[in-house]
Amino acid sequence: MQGIWLEKQQLQLKSDLPIPDSPAGEARIKVLRAGICNTDLELLRGYYPYTGILGHEFVGVVESGAPNLINKRVVGEINAACGKCHFCLTNQPTHCEQRTVLGIVNRNGAFADYLTLPVANLHAVPDQVTTDAATFTEPLAAALEIQEQVKILPEHNVLVVGDGKLGQLVAQTIALTGCDLLVIGRHHDKLEKLALRGIKVGFEDIVSPRSFDIAIECTGNPDGFNLALFGLRPRGTLVLKSTYAGKLTLDASAIVVDEITVVGSRCGPFAKALDLLSQNKVDVTSLIETCYPLEEGLAAFSHAQQRGTLKVLLKMDS
Amino acid sequence: MQGIWLEKQQLQLKSDLPIPDSPAGEARIKVLRAGICNTDLELLRGYYPYTGILGHEFVGVVESGAPNLINKRVVGEINAACGKCHFCLTNQPTHCEQRTVLGIVNRNGAFADYLTLPVANLHAVPDQVTTDAATFTEPLAAALEIQEQVKILPEHNVLVVGDGKLGQLVAQTIALTGCDLLVIGRHHDKLEKLALRGIKVGFEDIVSPRSFDIAIECTGNPDGFNLALFGLRPRGTLVLKSTYAGKLTLDASAIVVDEITVVGSRCGPFAKALDLLSQNKVDVTSLIETCYPLEEGLAAFSHAQQRGTLKVLLKMDS
Repeated sequence: MQGIWLEKQQLQLKSDLPIPDSPAGEARIKVLRAGICNTDLELLRGYYPYTGILGHEFVGVVESGAPNLINKRVVGEINAACGKCHFCLTNQPTHCEQRTVLGIVNRNGAFADYLTLPVANLHAVPDQVTTDAATFTEPLAAALEIQEQVKILPEHNVLVVGDGKLGQLVAQTIALTGCDLLVIGRHHDKLEKLALRGIKVGFEDIVSPRSFDIAIECTGNPDGFNLALFGLRPRGTLVLKSTYAGKLTLDASAIVVDEITVVGSRCGPFAKALDLLSQNKVDVTSLIETCYPLEEGLAAFSHAQQRGTLKVLLKMDS
Repeated sequence: MQGIWLEKQQLQLKSDLPIPDSPAGEARIKVLRAGICNTDLELLRGYYPYTGILGHEFVGVVESGAPNLINKRVVGEINAACGKCHFCLTNQPTHCEQRTVLGIVNRNGAFADYLTLPVANLHAVPDQVTTDAATFTEPLAAALEIQEQVKILPEHNVLVVGDGKLGQLVAQTIALTGCDLLVIGRHHDKLEKLALRGIKVGFEDIVSPRSFDIAIECTGNPDGFNLALFGLRPRGTLVLKSTYAGKLTLDASAIVVDEITVVGSRCGPFAKALDLLSQNKVDVTSLIETCYPLEEGLAAFSHAQQRGTLKVLLKMDS
């Protein structure tokens, strides 16, 4: 089968990869669509030394290994957990110490014709959700993780920093809380997408210092972090939603003096994400920049790496 | 009067300072004893551009301005708040935006014969608490602030990094929760003080990775921060208790991937600290390294700046 292989920070399109057998408890899935995420770009830059097929945002059809789901469209949680460790036994499988992670840690990913995942990780895609839209389940779940960790109330002032792929999803999900939301970005066209949904947007010069209860950093760069901290009130909460390639240098004294809480946030609830998609409460398909067939995967990556690009999809069912 | 004056990162012992008049709502206090804190040393290194008399840990006797406290021994909360802003009106006066801070921000401090503070900031020292012990009220309250912010239960594994002045107080207060506590330091004699109280102690080589629910950083240096993060389990809480001169460089991706919560922690509850002191539940006087008269204040600072020094006190009533 074909697949996009990462090794030593180099991408290759391989066409002689074996179709994977699904081990016990896992299903084999024919991939229909997959999305390129910033984490894929960070992996390419060496954020984590992964070797294998990239990709973790996908929709596919179950071929074998999950009798109840055969021929059904599914999305899949990306952390494959051991089921036995402290984290698994306390319902925190995304933090399993022995976990493999689809296209990120010791598990071939979704930029290929086939993948395997534990049956327990799979969620059927409701009929009313298109395959393109369902490709956003994983990042939408990650956006929803913020609300699993931090209670956001209508009386809160919330700042989202970043108008990219992740910022767009975070902003849309946070807006559903009814809070007073401001999204800061650097791209007029991207901010306009949010403004059309009634969300307040602007450039960084409109951020009042020390005025937000909660600030959510979705840029993955130090400027974004510093803007989020600048806008946050004392005793406010700063949510870090992006992985960073390299180290972040910050003013830790400001965190101490203002008694700031910083919360790291990663993978989230798939069921809730699928609910939002099936109820049409978020708009994800307008975030699709373009779609490439898998065999043009390297061109797709070049496109995704251009600054300011929204979601680039790979299509396997063409 | 005499006082230790900081200006442009230089200390001077001045002997011609005016005895302060207490403005309306403030009391004039004759200082009996004061403690040199790491924040004083950080100010000397330029952590914040303060000019004036240093010092914020003190015990004194009220001379005027507080009829109910005349001739009584008092300690004082260091943040003088405006009483009118959002933070004051929501019972967070330590975060008042217009606050002055004793010996730190726009308010002459305690390393002098006299100081003034708002009457509302003062707490009478119970008779059974010695003046030496009461000098630790402010840092002990700061240690107790951790428990105002983070719920620590007997089933928690807690790591305290640092065996210095702050680490000692934090360790003693955390031990009172009944949690499973380990204190890591670099000084056999200081760790021994805690071991004598039945607290588990050791050097950094005994820290198991990813195993503590809560880690409390009390060193103010990047090594301490990194050790605390190393010991913390996924979804754990890292409390930052020290101010840092300069920036801290960290692996923000680790905070995101492990969904760590970082909590900055500063000033705390004086009443609770005085309660602990009057009930003899913590031992502070064994942390006194030495005591100098105010006129030898510069020598006291030199002593306090030596690595590994515990609490250096200044005595004004000799």
